[in-house]
Amino acid sequence: MDAFDDILAANAAYAARFALGDLAAPPSGHLAVVTCMDCRIDPLAVLGLSVGQAHVLRNAGARVTDDVLRSLVKSVNQLGVTRIVVMHHSDCGAAKIVLSELRAKVTEATGNDPAEVDFHLIDDPEGALQADVEALRDHPYLPPGIEVAGLFYDVTTGVAELTQATVVG
Amino acid sequence: MDAFDDILAANAAYAARFALGDLAAPPSGHLAVVTCMDCRIDPLAVLGLSVGQAHVLRNAGARVTDDVLRSLVKSVNQLGVTRIVVMHHSDCGAAKIVLSELRAKVTEATGNDPAEVDFHLIDDPEGALQADVEALRDHPYLPPGIEVAGLFYDVTTGVAELTQATVVG
Repeated sequence: MDAFDDILAANAAYAARFALGDLAAPPSGHLAVVTCMDCRIDPLAVLGLSVGQAHVLRNAGARVTDDVLRSLVKSVNQLGVTRIVVMHHSDCGAAKIVLSELRAKVTEATGNDPAEVDFHLIDDPEGALQADVEALRDHPYLPPGIEVAGLFYDVTTGVAELTQATVVG
Repeated sequence: MDAFDDILAANAAYAARFALGDLAAPPSGHLAVVTCMDCRIDPLAVLGLSVGQAHVLRNAGARVTDDVLRSLVKSVNQLGVTRIVVMHHSDCGAAKIVLSELRAKVTEATGNDPAEVDFHLIDDPEGALQADVEALRDHPYLPPGIEVAGLFYDVTTGVAELTQATVVG
């Protein structure tokens, strides 16, 4: 079997019962959610959203990187998003991984040391979420009035707690 | 009502019926999916996956940026991922947006011209997907043997078509 046959077969079953072909590109909830790539998080389910309601952005750690910012500039200025949620979570790899160990693993597996890569690891979970929310609040390409919230999600209970809310100034 | 009360109320309902507290951090499908933030895409459903099976990475356009790469280096070297899917899609904002119009909108809304931002827009959809797959195939920090596929998803039919498959190394 080819490496992706299982996925293609599953998609064929999905397409056979597909009924979302009329959705519009602008999110109907005027919402964007930034969260982690972690496999335990189903962002739409966690926040009670349906397909079509929100942009969903995900990377390792739910960090507000340049890539997230350039994406959200489009969400807000072209696609009607007025609210942004940044949702970090418990037991996050970004907070557990030790940089020296990661570099050693990569070097062993590939022969190349990723010394110049910023992995956006998290030393201080509370401070990291606050910094990510503030990076949005203070971003020069997001207009005044955009609402921003920081949430912290517990992967063992399903609870997302609001840690802070602010407005782009 | 505060700006995020609806989301917090929906999460309380989710948490009340939560039954996924025992999932492990490494994706059980040894899979990572890179796709677009577009609100019409529900990646787990589209590919027949359950929560816990895959890392999901999303940005505007499903582009393989530095942020995606630094995230996948962790997926592969720390969390057991051996297969990566890059899924672009039809009617994508990254392929529809005109840079000059986006810059004009941001300038009008914020007073700041995002002239220095690389929005990773797509001129040539086929070429962009190929380039993103090849960026993974040739990345110095992904070990040999990792399987990589390019998929193109049609938001009007639900069909994800395999456009190319390759192997790192």
